[in-house]
Amino acid sequence: MMKKKKVKITDVTLRDGMHAVKHQFSVDDVKEIASKLDALGVSHIEVTHGDGLGGSTIQYGFSKETEEDLLRAARESIKRAKLTALLLPGIGTAEDMARAKEIGVETIRIATHCTEADISEQHMGEAKRLGLEVVGFLMMSHMVSASTLVEEAKKMESYGADVVYIVDSAGAMLPEEAGEKVSALRQALSPNVEIGFHAHHNLGLSIANSFAAIDAGADRIDCSLAGLGAGAGNTPLEVFAAAADKRGIDTGLDIYSAMDAAEDIVKPKMIRPVQIDRVSLTMGYAGVYSSFLLHAFRAAEQFGVDARDILIELGKRKVVGGQEDMIVDVALEIKKKTANVTMM
Amino acid sequence: MMKKKKVKITDVTLRDGMHAVKHQFSVDDVKEIASKLDALGVSHIEVTHGDGLGGSTIQYGFSKETEEDLLRAARESIKRAKLTALLLPGIGTAEDMARAKEIGVETIRIATHCTEADISEQHMGEAKRLGLEVVGFLMMSHMVSASTLVEEAKKMESYGADVVYIVDSAGAMLPEEAGEKVSALRQALSPNVEIGFHAHHNLGLSIANSFAAIDAGADRIDCSLAGLGAGAGNTPLEVFAAAADKRGIDTGLDIYSAMDAAEDIVKPKMIRPVQIDRVSLTMGYAGVYSSFLLHAFRAAEQFGVDARDILIELGKRKVVGGQEDMIVDVALEIKKKTANVTMM
Repeated sequence: MMKKKKVKITDVTLRDGMHAVKHQFSVDDVKEIASKLDALGVSHIEVTHGDGLGGSTIQYGFSKETEEDLLRAARESIKRAKLTALLLPGIGTAEDMARAKEIGVETIRIATHCTEADISEQHMGEAKRLGLEVVGFLMMSHMVSASTLVEEAKKMESYGADVVYIVDSAGAMLPEEAGEKVSALRQALSPNVEIGFHAHHNLGLSIANSFAAIDAGADRIDCSLAGLGAGAGNTPLEVFAAAADKRGIDTGLDIYSAMDAAEDIVKPKMIRPVQIDRVSLTMGYAGVYSSFLLHAFRAAEQFGVDARDILIELGKRKVVGGQEDMIVDVALEIKKKTANVTMM
Repeated sequence: MMKKKKVKITDVTLRDGMHAVKHQFSVDDVKEIASKLDALGVSHIEVTHGDGLGGSTIQYGFSKETEEDLLRAARESIKRAKLTALLLPGIGTAEDMARAKEIGVETIRIATHCTEADISEQHMGEAKRLGLEVVGFLMMSHMVSASTLVEEAKKMESYGADVVYIVDSAGAMLPEEAGEKVSALRQALSPNVEIGFHAHHNLGLSIANSFAAIDAGADRIDCSLAGLGAGAGNTPLEVFAAAADKRGIDTGLDIYSAMDAAEDIVKPKMIRPVQIDRVSLTMGYAGVYSSFLLHAFRAAEQFGVDARDILIELGKRKVVGGQEDMIVDVALEIKKKTANVTMM
């Protein structure tokens, strides 16, 4: 039997899950879901536009209601858990954060690409001054080695982060990788800094990856009811609660209530089933940004190649956001290669 | 990097998947799916009523077309893979098996409860005489210890089984358990006997459990397109193919074709989404037979208790099929316990 380990659960139904409902959760939805999550025992409830504070724009999609109204609705509904918000520097501002704090947000999660922790410095400093619990969120963590992640995590630690998360944004990690990376951070950071793990389910491994992260020393795990989240979704809270209990992990969750909330509250609000489909599976397999998909499908059509070949090549080259112009080059190369093979 | 291990994939879309479509796949469905599976590289294609040969009855649900027609349709569509049928002694007979062999079935999988391998002796003997490849299928393998499974597997080996499967019928295993049990069989059986693993996805762990089984020495893994199967479904073939490739496991599968077959052929034929819901999750958590569900819900209503409490207690007591009368006793005990608590 494994040692019984206690982990804190941050629920992201009302943040990452916003992507899956095109940011259309209402004040009433937030009240209903947040109060249920609070009662069933999660330690943190994240409520923000899918792309964080200030995300409600024409570029990222407008929320149904204002950020302030949604956060206030959550604040009124939560008694035990910490109200949490996400902020991506460049989208959200220090002002947004100060306003969120005024409304009653207690924990701020500041997210950057896994090699760009330095852009979180200013916001983390400001968050500390505001007295917020500060969580660093290293996105697309599958793209770099454990040692690079350690460097970036140490930057966040130096800016005052209380927690650093390894974020598998594309759902591209295997359990071994999740474990190795969490373990590297656990060894490198001060024991006062907690480690978190945020999974996506693109390869059907969100629960197994979360287990591996916990075994390696993770203190916090992100989940969402019914897995509601971008792409193939996040670690489903109710499934994780049941499986973790069998494995001797203490999540503090009421398993039946989690099942009921997923089934009776969240599933009826889904506008499409959250599942592993061809697109999300390709993302996990290739390890690429969802923002590449549209470009890749366009280039595939233009050059008569398979979009998946393009995405997989982009994954191999570790192309990052902003390098979308490389997609056409890759499509063209694949077309040439295929033509050569045909000619031989 | 892990050692690259080759595994054979048995697809069960047209057998376990039959449960998910109430056994209503037509001859044309079988032709379409079997030919696609054959082309994409699975080693075995199982085509049978969900409850095996002879399963098309009022008790288990009638198939849309006759067993012979479905098997013939598959036979015509398969060039490389071995055509496989399932048989549960007590439902299917030696005559059914002989007829299946005549039609062109090459592999027979003979399934028993994990403690009742002895009832497979006669059918295995007959299967050997017919020249079939013989696979033993130990259902509900989470219910007994590794050493008990070894005893039962050794019986099947002595009856001539070429392969013995550990079958996690309720989707109740964790990866550690799957690994431990496969490892025990691998050590105890002759190296000539292959080990297989059949997962269900009730705890969201079908892929991780299959990986653990492979690490422990499994030679064969069961999958189905889009996870089509009873309850929360089986290990989804296309997801497993992609994740296994990333992990350095050689499945011989064409990943893109598997994705396309799942998305374009199987998902449109689903009569309900195959997913982890409250019922299938409770089954995996409690580790009980699906046949208990209806009885448990009835007893729950009658006594005003939660059906999940009944199922979990049944799981703890390791109640097996045929002991359904215990369900009312358990419901009554839970009611009494709850009443005592309330009175204190």
